[in-house]
Formats: sequence, structure tokens, C-alpha cells
Amino acid sequence: MKINGSDYRSIWYDKNAGTVNIIDQTLLPHEFRIQQLQSLPEVCHAITSMQVRGAPLIGVTAVFGLYLALKHDALALAAAQKELLKTRPTAVNLAWALDRASSQIDSVDAAAKADKALAVACLMADEDVQVCEAIGEHGLELLQALWQQKKDTSQPLNVLTHCNAGALATVDWGTALSVIYKAHVANIPLHIWVDETRPRNQGASLTCWELEQQGIPYSLIVDNAGGHLMQIGKVDVCIVGSDRTTAHGDVCNKIGTYLKALAAQDNGVPFYAAVPISSIDFSLAVGHGAIPIEERHASEVTHIRGINRLGNPSTVRITSQNAPVSNFGFDITPARLVSGIITEKGVLPASEKGLEGINRFGSA
Amino acid sequence: MKINGSDYRSIWYDKNAGTVNIIDQTLLPHEFRIQQLQSLPEVCHAITSMQVRGAPLIGVTAVFGLYLALKHDALALAAAQKELLKTRPTAVNLAWALDRASSQIDSVDAAAKADKALAVACLMADEDVQVCEAIGEHGLELLQALWQQKKDTSQPLNVLTHCNAGALATVDWGTALSVIYKAHVANIPLHIWVDETRPRNQGASLTCWELEQQGIPYSLIVDNAGGHLMQIGKVDVCIVGSDRTTAHGDVCNKIGTYLKALAAQDNGVPFYAAVPISSIDFSLAVGHGAIPIEERHASEVTHIRGINRLGNPSTVRITSQNAPVSNFGFDITPARLVSGIITEKGVLPASEKGLEGINRFGSA
Repeated sequence: MKINGSDYRSIWYDKNAGTVNIIDQTLLPHEFRIQQLQSLPEVCHAITSMQVRGAPLIGVTAVFGLYLALKHDALALAAAQKELLKTRPTAVNLAWALDRASSQIDSVDAAAKADKALAVACLMADEDVQVCEAIGEHGLELLQALWQQKKDTSQPLNVLTHCNAGALATVDWGTALSVIYKAHVANIPLHIWVDETRPRNQGASLTCWELEQQGIPYSLIVDNAGGHLMQIGKVDVCIVGSDRTTAHGDVCNKIGTYLKALAAQDNGVPFYAAVPISSIDFSLAVGHGAIPIEERHASEVTHIRGINRLGNPSTVRITSQNAPVSNFGFDITPARLVSGIITEKGVLPASEKGLEGINRFGSA
Repeated sequence: MKINGSDYRSIWYDKNAGTVNIIDQTLLPHEFRIQQLQSLPEVCHAITSMQVRGAPLIGVTAVFGLYLALKHDALALAAAQKELLKTRPTAVNLAWALDRASSQIDSVDAAAKADKALAVACLMADEDVQVCEAIGEHGLELLQALWQQKKDTSQPLNVLTHCNAGALATVDWGTALSVIYKAHVANIPLHIWVDETRPRNQGASLTCWELEQQGIPYSLIVDNAGGHLMQIGKVDVCIVGSDRTTAHGDVCNKIGTYLKALAAQDNGVPFYAAVPISSIDFSLAVGHGAIPIEERHASEVTHIRGINRLGNPSTVRITSQNAPVSNFGFDITPARLVSGIITEKGVLPASEKGLEGINRFGSA
């Protein structure tokens, strides 16, 4: 992705410093700061504090965490894996990435484990970039078709997205936003409706910033607004990411996704999830009751971080003191509301039949 | 309503001071401050700045505005009415209340106009209290039936509400919250899910505060969360207010209401709007395209007001500078998603047939 005109990834290994570098996403959009990670605890903290977030990026970051743990202690593999697995419960990539990396690291001698972990992490990062770019290319075909069908071409193609499924949620390109970036490169006139995505405002702080950096027109909206915009014909398509998708096509994504999918169906607006195949959990048929839905801290709802009048970071409380809060992080959009799943292997129906071929050809 | 244990209304005439007093709702929940209004410009400012808000309260406040204008200049009626009408475009009560008051004030001599306006305003305030209490009593019957049907009575009756349709949105009691207050008095165990209601957070700042003051258990949730809560069976009924309801039962209310109604339908949860008959616009059949939807300032989305670490009021910007914003204030929930309209005359089907009797018996 372009940041201030230069190419960046969301995570990279700095050979000279011997550090793993990330963009501290808790500071965006107010400050662009690169954070060096040097130890397993720093990696765990980066994931739990959401300096890095997004299912694909969490997976790759965790494998870099194995590297930093092994560099310090060649026997730390199992303990490090256990520690990393606890950082976030909902995303399936995390377990998938750690399992895959561990089995490869396990196969080499203790002295070679750290180097092996680094090689695996760098390879997985490169693979993630390729996967995300391929998701964008398949999704581009969808947007090209929608653009050709659009009657009023004096208006851009209006795409609604929720949360941040962009380059910042992956190593590069993103999932839902990869589709948008590819369409932008292909000169489809675009306008993106960005849900602010309470409580953590990843839409307002990350998606808006990413789109601004790539020069793509957008408008920030509150999460409440998407239904009205669909009712008045101002949304041509919804594209979201997914933290975990089931074998039957249920999409577990940031809380509020389900509400947008309902509105899309009610107004005949196509609704797609863009996902790497690694995030499809073929062990689950149905999401409801099977996927653990993370409950996060009340302060995410009661307190909001921003920039005050003096330009300094500041946190304000928007409720009375000790207001009781419930704060579920994700919801499940049933497959019946999903027009299709955009993957690196193509756009597939959100159904058991639609997704089974992918499972057979395998991505493990 | 009880505030710190004492009885208050949202607006009242202070005979000794000769002022119209309101609770400055922009300061809640952090500060309870009574504001004295002494002139028409102060009343207009109170409405546009949302020191007072809520369709019924706006109507009554505007009539007190006529009084203050006439007290200053006995010939000011037409100009004052015009000025007040411009303050908020979506609510129908405003025009209804001003028309009704003006025709009565017009019928008396210039010297008597101010006194007449005051008498009309006080009468309308009293009427609003009676209407809201009656709405609560009719809604109570609904909640009693739902409580009797509830299988797991180890859990309270879970009611979801959006925005603030409470005592603070009216002169007293509220509309949606009047139902809840009556159910609380009737000893139905309750738990209220309060949507925070971005962008202005009337749920987080006003509804939570009101419920807390009346001692009713609640949890604050982000607007994104209601769908998930309905999916997991944690919502027994939704009750919202309405700024304008059409003759066929379409409900225009705070942006995001439509999304909750869709989720309610998808999960078999009853969805009611509680409204005074004065807010039903019998001149409109369908809401879509006919009710003007107010677009409000971008800063409502980009900036959030709260209390900083030192306990002082503070505003933070949550976006990058000059982020483009779209900010529609309301949406329209089609009648097909509405289980019923709770009015002061009873609970009516959300349909032309269901509402026509009310129109015939008249409330004008």
C-alpha cells in the first residue's frame, strides 16, 4: 500500500535491525508510527492491544512471534504457540498459521529453529500478499460487471464496507479493500461508504485513512446509516471481510455486519464477503452457536480516543461513570444473506456445495 | 421523571422568574443543569443546538417560544412562527403544535396574545404528559402479555430501544420509555438494551441516564450489536419512538431504527413504535421519498464530546482532518416491519386500516 507516496506492508522483517516491524494501528489516523517488535511478549501485546488486527495479519504476526521467541530460547516453541493462541479467540487464521508454522519448525534441529521460523514467517507474509492480490482480481470482475450494469453512470459505483478489511488487516492489499484497489487501478469510478464501526472505529480511523492514502473517494458514515443509503439507492454493492467463514458459507465478521447484510437483502443490493481460504473453517457447518464470539472490555464502548483541540491524543468518557455495558465483538451473517464469497480461487456461492471444491483442492 | 430523587419535567414555566426552564440535554449525563430561556432566539437556539430534542418536546418548546416572542412584541406571532418552523425539518409535531397554538393566539386581542400563548403552551405541556402516560399504559399491556409468554422467567424481560424516546424527549414520561416506566412500576422484571445511537449518542448519554435515575437495569450497547443479541435470543421486544409516522404505518425515526426492525423481523422479535397521535402525518401514505430526511453537520460524526481524565468536558476528533462525511439523521422503517403502533388511544396495527379510526376520531 502507498503511505505518503511510498510502498509499505503492514508487517516486515528488518534485516539490519533484526526486528519485526509493524505499523502501530492504535495511533492511526492521527499518527503514522512504525513499531519495532523484539520479543514474544511484545508480539502478544501488539495483538491483544490491537496494534495489529485483522485475521490474516494476526496469523502472520503470530508466526513472527514464534521467531522472536525461538531466537531467545530454541526450546520455546510449544510454550510460545500456547501463549500466542490465547491472544484472540475468534479468528481461525491464528490457529491455522501457528499450526502450519509449528509443524515446519518442529522438523528442524534446535539450532536451526529460529532461522526456520523466520523463513516460514517471511514466506507466509509473501503468500498472504499473493492471496490478497488474487482476491482483489477476482472481486474486480464482479465490480466490472456491476459497473457495466449501472444505469446512471454519471454517478460512481457506490461500495459500502464495514470495519477495516484493508491492507492494514493483512500484510498488503487487504481482502474487501483489495477488490476496491484493483477496481480503482482498472479505472472504475468509485465512491466508498465507510461504516465507522463502533466501538473501535476501525472504519473511521483505518479504512478512511487507507482510502485517503490511495486517493480513492469515500464518505464516512455512522453504522446506523447504511440501511437508509440502501433504501435511497445509494449503494451498489456491499463488500466486507470475514474473521471466520463456515463450510456452509456463514460469515463471522465484525459486529454489525449482519445488520448490513439484512438491509442489502431487503433492498436487492449484492452482499459479498472477501476472504482468504485459510479463514474458512471447514470443520464447522453453521456459525450460530459454534463460533465463540469474543466479548471485549466495556471501556471500548464508554471511552473514545481521538485528538483534542490542541492536537494531542486524548480519551473521553461518553457515558456516566460505571454505566453497565455489553460488548460483543463479532456477529454471524447467515449464508442465505451472502451473495458470494470472494476468494483467491474465484468468487464462490456461499453454500456447502459452493465451497466444497475449495476444500478438496486444499489450502492446508 | 425522578432526577436525584425529585420530580421534574423536561420543560416548565417558572412563574416567579417569568422564564421558561429546560434541562440542557447537551450536558447530560455529565452535568444536570437547568437553563432559563427568556427570548425567541434563545428558544430557537435551544432547539437547533438540541438542548431540547425529541419530537413532542420540540413542539411544546416552540409554543413557549411564541409566548416569549409575544411578551417582547405583541405583533410578532407570524414572524416567530416562521422562525421556529425552520429549526428542525423532520418532526411533524413542530408544525402541528405551532399551527394549533397560532390559531388560538390569533383569536385574541394584541394585548392578550402573550398571556394566551403562555396558557396554550402550559396546556399543551399538560396534555403531552397525559398523552405519554396513556401511551405507557397501553404499552404496559403488551409487556405484561410478553412477560406471561416468556419461558425462562429466571431472566428479565429484555427490551431493546434506540435513541432516546424518554421523558427527556417529551414533557414527561416519554413514549417508548413510558412503556418501560409503567412496566417497572407494575413490577415486571426488566433489562433494557440501550443502543448508543451514533452520531449524537442520545442512547448513551440520555436514555442510560434516565433509566439509571429511575432505577431500571440496563446495558449500553453499540448500534452494531442489536442484531447479534436478537440472534442469540437476548431480546424479547424492541420499542422505539418516532418523529413522524405515516397514515399507512411507516415509521420515520432516528437513523438506524430500520436496521433494528429488519433484525427483529429476521428473528421473530416483535417491534413496536410508541407515538403520540399528533406525530402521525395523515397527509402521507408512504414515508419513502415523502418525508424530508434531515442531513446534519459532519462534525457530529467526526467529533465526540465527553469528559476527559480530569473530569472536564472535552471534544475529540476521531478522524483525520477534513474526512468527508455523510450524516443523515433519520430513516424510514416500512410498516411491514412494524408489529404495532402504541398510541394514547391503544395499540394499533401499522397499516392504513389500523390507523384510520384514530384519524376519524381526530386529535387536531
